[in-house]
Amino acid sequence: MKTLLKNAKVINVFSSQIEDKNVLIENDIIIGVGEYYTEQDADFTIDLSGKIISPSFIDGHIHIESTMLTPYELAKSVLPHGTTAIVCDPHEIANVCGVDGIKYILQSSNGLPLDTFVMIPSCVPATSLDESGAELKAKDILPLYKESRVLGLAEMMNYVGVVNGDKQVLQKLIDAKKLGKIINGHAPLLSGKDLDKYILSGVMDDHECSKLEEAKEKINKGQRVMIRQGTAAKNLKDLIGLFEYPWCDRCLLVSDDKHPADLLNNGHIDEVIRLAISLGANPLNAIKMATKGACDAFDIKDRGAIAVGYKADLVVLDNLENIGVEMVFKNGETVAKNGVVAPFDKPKVSGKIHKKVTNTFNLKRLEKSDFIIEPKGKTCRVIQVIKGQLITNEKIEELDFSKNNGIDIGRDIIKVAVVERHKNTGHKGVGFITGLSINSGAIASSVSHDSHNLIIVGASEEDMALAGNEIINMGGGCVVVKNGKVISKMPLPIAGLMTELSAKEIAEQNEHLRKSVTQLGVASGIEPFMTTAFVSLPVIPFLKMTTFGLVEVTTQTKKDLFV
Amino acid sequence: MKTLLKNAKVINVFSSQIEDKNVLIENDIIIGVGEYYTEQDADFTIDLSGKIISPSFIDGHIHIESTMLTPYELAKSVLPHGTTAIVCDPHEIANVCGVDGIKYILQSSNGLPLDTFVMIPSCVPATSLDESGAELKAKDILPLYKESRVLGLAEMMNYVGVVNGDKQVLQKLIDAKKLGKIINGHAPLLSGKDLDKYILSGVMDDHECSKLEEAKEKINKGQRVMIRQGTAAKNLKDLIGLFEYPWCDRCLLVSDDKHPADLLNNGHIDEVIRLAISLGANPLNAIKMATKGACDAFDIKDRGAIAVGYKADLVVLDNLENIGVEMVFKNGETVAKNGVVAPFDKPKVSGKIHKKVTNTFNLKRLEKSDFIIEPKGKTCRVIQVIKGQLITNEKIEELDFSKNNGIDIGRDIIKVAVVERHKNTGHKGVGFITGLSINSGAIASSVSHDSHNLIIVGASEEDMALAGNEIINMGGGCVVVKNGKVISKMPLPIAGLMTELSAKEIAEQNEHLRKSVTQLGVASGIEPFMTTAFVSLPVIPFLKMTTFGLVEVTTQTKKDLFV
Repeated sequence: MKTLLKNAKVINVFSSQIEDKNVLIENDIIIGVGEYYTEQDADFTIDLSGKIISPSFIDGHIHIESTMLTPYELAKSVLPHGTTAIVCDPHEIANVCGVDGIKYILQSSNGLPLDTFVMIPSCVPATSLDESGAELKAKDILPLYKESRVLGLAEMMNYVGVVNGDKQVLQKLIDAKKLGKIINGHAPLLSGKDLDKYILSGVMDDHECSKLEEAKEKINKGQRVMIRQGTAAKNLKDLIGLFEYPWCDRCLLVSDDKHPADLLNNGHIDEVIRLAISLGANPLNAIKMATKGACDAFDIKDRGAIAVGYKADLVVLDNLENIGVEMVFKNGETVAKNGVVAPFDKPKVSGKIHKKVTNTFNLKRLEKSDFIIEPKGKTCRVIQVIKGQLITNEKIEELDFSKNNGIDIGRDIIKVAVVERHKNTGHKGVGFITGLSINSGAIASSVSHDSHNLIIVGASEEDMALAGNEIINMGGGCVVVKNGKVISKMPLPIAGLMTELSAKEIAEQNEHLRKSVTQLGVASGIEPFMTTAFVSLPVIPFLKMTTFGLVEVTTQTKKDLFV
Repeated sequence: MKTLLKNAKVINVFSSQIEDKNVLIENDIIIGVGEYYTEQDADFTIDLSGKIISPSFIDGHIHIESTMLTPYELAKSVLPHGTTAIVCDPHEIANVCGVDGIKYILQSSNGLPLDTFVMIPSCVPATSLDESGAELKAKDILPLYKESRVLGLAEMMNYVGVVNGDKQVLQKLIDAKKLGKIINGHAPLLSGKDLDKYILSGVMDDHECSKLEEAKEKINKGQRVMIRQGTAAKNLKDLIGLFEYPWCDRCLLVSDDKHPADLLNNGHIDEVIRLAISLGANPLNAIKMATKGACDAFDIKDRGAIAVGYKADLVVLDNLENIGVEMVFKNGETVAKNGVVAPFDKPKVSGKIHKKVTNTFNLKRLEKSDFIIEPKGKTCRVIQVIKGQLITNEKIEELDFSKNNGIDIGRDIIKVAVVERHKNTGHKGVGFITGLSINSGAIASSVSHDSHNLIIVGASEEDMALAGNEIINMGGGCVVVKNGKVISKMPLPIAGLMTELSAKEIAEQNEHLRKSVTQLGVASGIEPFMTTAFVSLPVIPFLKMTTFGLVEVTTQTKKDLFV
């Protein structure tokens, strides 16, 4: 079937110009671009009345799990914003379910009108001071490259391993290079000789640039820069200088993380382009980054341009300031119009894989006694949360274990526990945390980077046990408990990270969760679930809690609770 | 071994800037670029004293046979000019020897300090109105893609075959596309809907643009443009407008054809850059085209930039106006300095292949009677040569066969013959030619596009036979005969197209050949060997001679000598 899009202002990513052309599409491919194509050449004509058409947008790096949505629901959410392809790094679900988690992502995205390309996580587990649900060795990764949607190796965060010649790390890089695959990077503030060593190992890009000069150094050294603008991490404003030539031709736009409410309220890559333009960026450069830029970075040869031989993946925009997405074509078909998505089938996941990703809690039921600490002194290391930051300090406090086993509401000192939940190792780290202003009850979550064990914080051991057991009941998620009752819950039954619900539904549940923590005394401006998501990550300084107990991040050593 | 190049002004092809840096090389790879590398980091240091270093140059499209040199001698000629890689299309030798010819090119270039990449000829034979020595079908081409230096399918000249869905043509394109290979194009003046059809078939670039608008149309449609500046065909001046952004990033520099005297006297890609700059081009853009541009077009990922992980293939230039090449590094070693090439080994060719390419004349000895025409009338079609052009007209002339069998020196009408020499088919076309101003003797050549049969023109049938037989004796080449004596000869014993001699030696022989034709009465400004090279090419209008006789090019039909 041939479709003619006539009277279009076509964005040309090769000449950086807009041309008055007609576009002829046959099935899913563009077969002609020129004023010489007419309705006679087609079965069906759409008159675009002078509107702008652009190649549709591509998110070059996203952790689908951060949206909590399945690829199906994510597609429904982003298609109306003009995104027709994403490149994801499923390291969260891989930390829980290993290769089965990656297979789940591939199967649950198969055939979607949102092309879901996958990079294989390179650092699972993230560190040895963690107990993940699985490990991805080089030999586990290698066979996955046979999948056509697998483009390469995901963010190589382990710079130290690279430089020290860690055998597994080097093998993963060698395997990827040998097959001509893409290797993504993650090296914030890496510079000079260290950066050279990292690049020499084969890492081709970076999404952790927070400063313009940092990004320019990486581009000068041959890397591509992913300009990251997500829900939590926002680098666009600082990197706006990259939107000019020659820098712009070595960049692409990525989310990294995206919360469902942010998707619903603000948008996706369209929003990033819009914001960039409002900050002064040349619209055509921004659009090039969001289209051709991503394809250049991932060696995708048949997308990212409106030209003969390319896929008919296009968006119709209202204008180059607002970037309002009016129509979206994927493989030559209209998949969204004025914010409404045309229905499409949900991909089928095999029974075996479905079972693997929905039975990820293996631990005994929790009891109050699990959180009682036997005092070995009076002076303890307490994790101090800093408002608005992921960094947590070590605070030394004198605690009275005769009263509430050390919990001291008056000084905002409550308990924190991280309980292993993948393989029933029985390990748990229990200690104290301050700065959340929780004065009663407990919250628990299975979203706990990177190993996603069960993290529970609370002012009452009974409530902590109840909260943890509710998570186990749900097969994962977040919960708020007060005085023996569950007052809010958000099930995430897929690996303890994702839901089958729509973005709207999960956003509502998440909002209810957020609001309900005020009943525990949490002050305005503090987001306890945001905090608990990172309190167990022994990569961000300075003091963290894992299933093994306290960890001093800078020295990467375990620390006793008692000083 | 580690080498430091210090105090260099490094051309950065990513940022289009020149940076004061030191470059650290380990063996053949660049492992560091920065001011923070010092002599302590290396075993050996070269102080470049502020000179400019650039990635070394790449010729993206050349017919080695046009130089008449072996790859070994070609390497010796171009390395001092800063060229360390070429992409060749061996269709001349393939027309003579088929796959064996391509194997000869691969073997005779193996391990050279001039990386010799090969594209497999797509149109052998060029037309069906020719008798080539071999045919390359899709099934002959496919296995060659296994060779690492074979990058794809060479210039698809057969536009008509593409559009008409010729089975063999489509199969060749499908095979190349399936393997992700590069497909080069050749489509002068193709435009609009026709160009779209051609691009849809998979053709990625073009080197036949003679006008700026033509080149821009192709770039707009997604093709890359090879800006061709050779010995015969010179498009640089007309395409100088492509040296600006955004066009320059979709272009590369190529020779297509290059005569050895031109190489010796003027240079290679360095000369093209120099000329472009003299015409106003931005030097960095020109250099980017000659380096990164070629690598982008051919998916060569480890060359074309001075950056970590890239090959240490570099040139040291005096300045950005003169583009004087002072030093050349290939794989980290100095291969040329101030015009002097460091010695390197000559690649070995297998005995079997050597035999195949040096025994390419299979035909009986010629005699005067071979060139005697039995008159079937008085009015003949005569091929009219136009000075300085490849186009030849049809001139109808009344000839007196009772005198000299039609030869009429007074009216500058002599004989032309094209004799099949590959498979001893016995075919030959004999007729008349005017415009060469040859009044005695004969010349003969085995350089006769595209089939490279034996072409002989002369005022005397005896001299024609002698000339032809001398070519057979030599195993190929060019010869000038007068009054029963060979007065000049240039042997080309490799397929009748190439020699083992150096550029200097063959240039001298060629010069002697050129000068000696004056003894046959040839007027100044006429280059008879240039003419005879194309008189048998039934692709360039209007009247040509082949082994089957006269051909009217526009209708692609055979014509009788007698009207």
